[in-house]
Amino acid sequence: MTTTAHRDGHTPAAPGTVGPIGYSLPLSPSGKASMLTPPPWHFCGEILMVDYRVDPDAARRFLPPGLDPGADPGAAAAVFATWQWCSQDGAELADPAVCQFSEFLILLSCTFEGRPMARCPFAWVDQPVPMMRGWVQGMPKQFGAIHRTRPVTVGRAGSRLAPGGRFDGALSVHGRRSVEASVTIERSTERPPALHDVPLAHSLVFPEWVPSAPPRTQLVASEVSDVEFSLIWSGPGHLTYLDRLGEDFASLSPLEVRTGYVFTYGETLHGGRLLRE
Amino acid sequence: MTTTAHRDGHTPAAPGTVGPIGYSLPLSPSGKASMLTPPPWHFCGEILMVDYRVDPDAARRFLPPGLDPGADPGAAAAVFATWQWCSQDGAELADPAVCQFSEFLILLSCTFEGRPMARCPFAWVDQPVPMMRGWVQGMPKQFGAIHRTRPVTVGRAGSRLAPGGRFDGALSVHGRRSVEASVTIERSTERPPALHDVPLAHSLVFPEWVPSAPPRTQLVASEVSDVEFSLIWSGPGHLTYLDRLGEDFASLSPLEVRTGYVFTYGETLHGGRLLRE
Amino acid sequence: MTTTAHRDGHTPAAPGTVGPIGYSLPLSPSGKASMLTPPPWHFCGEILMVDYRVDPDAARRFLPPGLDPGADPGAAAAVFATWQWCSQDGAELADPAVCQFSEFLILLSCTFEGRPMARCPFAWVDQPVPMMRGWVQGMPKQFGAIHRTRPVTVGRAGSRLAPGGRFDGALSVHGRRSVEASVTIERSTERPPALHDVPLAHSLVFPEWVPSAPPRTQLVASEVSDVEFSLIWSGPGHLTYLDRLGEDFASLSPLEVRTGYVFTYGETLHGGRLLRE
Amino acid sequence: MTTTAHRDGHTPAAPGTVGPIGYSLPLSPSGKASMLTPPPWHFCGEILMVDYRVDPDAARRFLPPGLDPGADPGAAAAVFATWQWCSQDGAELADPAVCQFSEFLILLSCTFEGRPMARCPFAWVDQPVPMMRGWVQGMPKQFGAIHRTRPVTVGRAGSRLAPGGRFDGALSVHGRRSVEASVTIERSTERPPALHDVPLAHSLVFPEWVPSAPPRTQLVASEVSDVEFSLIWSGPGHLTYLDRLGEDFASLSPLEVRTGYVFTYGETLHGGRLLRE
Repeated sequence: MTTTAHRDGHTPAAPGTVGPIGYSLPLSPSGKASMLTPPPWHFCGEILMVDYRVDPDAARRFLPPGLDPGADPGAAAAVFATWQWCSQDGAELADPAVCQFSEFLILLSCTFEGRPMARCPFAWVDQPVPMMRGWVQGMPKQFGAIHRTRPVTVGRAGSRLAPGGRFDGALSVHGRRSVEASVTIERSTERPPALHDVPLAHSLVFPEWVPSAPPRTQLVASEVSDVEFSLIWSGPGHLTYLDRLGEDFASLSPLEVRTGYVFTYGETLHGGRLLRE
Repeated sequence: MTTTAHRDGHTPAAPGTVGPIGYSLPLSPSGKASMLTPPPWHFCGEILMVDYRVDPDAARRFLPPGLDPGADPGAAAAVFATWQWCSQDGAELADPAVCQFSEFLILLSCTFEGRPMARCPFAWVDQPVPMMRGWVQGMPKQFGAIHRTRPVTVGRAGSRLAPGGRFDGALSVHGRRSVEASVTIERSTERPPALHDVPLAHSLVFPEWVPSAPPRTQLVASEVSDVEFSLIWSGPGHLTYLDRLGEDFASLSPLEVRTGYVFTYGETLHGGRLLRE
Repeated sequence: MTTTAHRDGHTPAAPGTVGPIGYSLPLSPSGKASMLTPPPWHFCGEILMVDYRVDPDAARRFLPPGLDPGADPGAAAAVFATWQWCSQDGAELADPAVCQFSEFLILLSCTFEGRPMARCPFAWVDQPVPMMRGWVQGMPKQFGAIHRTRPVTVGRAGSRLAPGGRFDGALSVHGRRSVEASVTIERSTERPPALHDVPLAHSLVFPEWVPSAPPRTQLVASEVSDVEFSLIWSGPGHLTYLDRLGEDFASLSPLEVRTGYVFTYGETLHGGRLLRE
Repeated sequence: MTTTAHRDGHTPAAPGTVGPIGYSLPLSPSGKASMLTPPPWHFCGEILMVDYRVDPDAARRFLPPGLDPGADPGAAAAVFATWQWCSQDGAELADPAVCQFSEFLILLSCTFEGRPMARCPFAWVDQPVPMMRGWVQGMPKQFGAIHRTRPVTVGRAGSRLAPGGRFDGALSVHGRRSVEASVTIERSTERPPALHDVPLAHSLVFPEWVPSAPPRTQLVASEVSDVEFSLIWSGPGHLTYLDRLGEDFASLSPLEVRTGYVFTYGETLHGGRLLRE
């Protein structure tokens, strides 16, 4: 039986054969050396998010076949998140050097077969396991330095989650400050920000290594459950793209910056659902 | 007038002279290039703390002249903290890459002229400004990697601040895991842990560089105000010293591990008060 | 024509279609946002390598179908490398924050259809692009901290490349020191170490995300050219596995440590050749 | 006798007294927990250096009393270095995670009592021990990310040390790219660059913590021996100050960029000599 290494019944890489196994590389005799655990993965994130608008034509050029701009072309969001995560059995929580990471990502409004979804053209994280797990699900996570001020509940070293409180986020890539954002809180609501409350549509693609038929790209939707939002604090947002990330990234520069949000978010990610080959 | 660079009236390094000035290095024409701002500094920390006991003789050997073991010799605490901080004008809060750090430190119970205090024989932080600021106040901060699981309020990726919740801390130094700790919550109280509620007594000492009279060591107490504690969650603590930090550190290994605590703490640090030359 | 983003004629991810393109994620309108450039990639590495022997049965359990233990079962090597790299057009060399990384890897002796090859069961690097590029070629690169002392040519802060010189390597993973090695030089030779002079046989495998037929694993060999060795310095090696990387890694612990080597190595990596589906 | 912890006879911090000792914090029973070893310290550095000119008035404003602009006011140099170092007994060389760091610094031409010297107004390193050691000697080292391409001797992933070879350096501070430089080699010489071949004059200053008489600033010169240069490769230099480091740093922006150099340098640093109280 080779499945002992697989906590939730996922098929190991090399079932029923002699040879090392695993959900991911590295393959090993027991499968336990796999860098990634199979889904489901639980997440809890402290989020700073700013809605903005980009050139609708620029946004459209980032949508793969199957996705349409939808009713609000050019709607976008910048999201800074500080995550804690664990696998199904929660084992990573006992090692705080493993179970946390920070992330910055951009979301574009879109639709699939008329249903609202979000497309993530760019994302950065500061830990290798989430980066690799991003590629497994078609999410284009690269490596960066992401920082976000956190609300305080005592003392004078920061803002409280209350009107007047200000929270900032910053992204640096290869030692170059690339994005800065802030939110100044005016009110609270229970309604989640639109782009954080729709499924994500990613493209599964893996770089060609051995000469082959054209690589297959699959459009997939992430399958999540147990979505939970805290109260949503909101107010005027600010967002600045700084330099150095190239023409494609720059084409999504903010034309208009709108509301910002601060909230906490939980979800469980189970795998992907094929939308279109 | 050279004082414009000094936000709170501290005397610049070279008052009234020609030449560059500053609260700290680097000195510069305006004084604004100083790596450190002068106190006061505001702090808000998320804390995981474990009380333990060490060999009272070993603890005594870490106390400088002027400090006595007091009524509870061998009482010690290990503290993991995730801090947000800012100077008097709060400027650092607008740059989240600057205003946060993590810390691990050890506290030993002691007294000065009969009053309870705490002595910090070892501390590690993960940012350079807090490290250097530690030496300015006589706190022996070195560089390390400090991680601490955080309570969650939504989702399944961590424990809530409630009975049964478990929180972990870890310290690595030069790529070697050195300390691990955890607390499993059983109850809450408003009474702060004893060793986190007394003044710290540090030794101001700076390494000799030019041949000179014997370097002066001053025993000082940190001057703090605006101390604020959240509710204190507590329960059984665990604490393990792993290897590689040398015989002095090892001499403070836990003989008995007691209660652990999880709480939030705020303070403002104003400078030092001379206890003894 | 969508190939302008592809420096050497590799097929883009979505040729001839509407939609973003790229050799890898992130896909983008121009394809230039791709985190990875397509091969060829040039490498120059400063290497510290130690030959050792492991339990032949343990080694065999890491070989996938198609690879055999060969004439010297249990022969292994530990390799610390400090790399500089660039793509075909050399563009990365103008950004020294991008074109360098360090690596630690283990090699096991094996054969494919009777020809000597090496299998890499474990590897760690300290930069995200090489990590992801490892998975593209089937090399199980994870993230770690890798350090290696370098030879000096002036002054007293290190050894020269000459008899008596000692060089050290160290690997830490998640803040835990895992491997330490050293070589003390006795002589030089022009003959490369056996396990650094054979092709690498990797397993292309990508974690399952959408429910599908059993994931395909392909056995591939890396295609390299322009291999160049410096003079090879060698002498007694030392190698210690420390803890914390799990039973699979531990099963390859050294039973006997042999010669160590210090040398410089260059190669160009062009892609993969399919050995077996 | 308390001197066992002191490898070269330096007076410990608290000789002849009860209480913990050490060359630096942390003080401990044996003194061996000191973060810093006492000098001498040996260094070997791979250097990329670019001569440039700044506004002579701006440069003068960085000179403390006692230093004069000298015969070539406004002469400056930007230096990127990758160092290996060890204490007198070489112990650090056995831990490659400890004995290496990178540095960027600026030098200004000046004189003390008519003798040519160099003043370092700004410096950054990427390791905590060298940062703290900088302050001990009056060198204003802060924390940054420093990268430098290295010469290759085999393969195609970089330039050789030969005419036409190009080498780059980059500094980032708090995730912001601040300085970029390059040198394209045209020739070699045995004459060291002027600003790398004169003593450094630093200001010993330590931030005030307890209210006191005005803090003393001492002008000191570093005492070095065993200076050794490799062959010096030189050619046209490029140097760009990017943003974000404040008005004082910006006042030293290049008005004219001159020759660049690539070389290896060794020295032993023994302590300081008082130039002026």
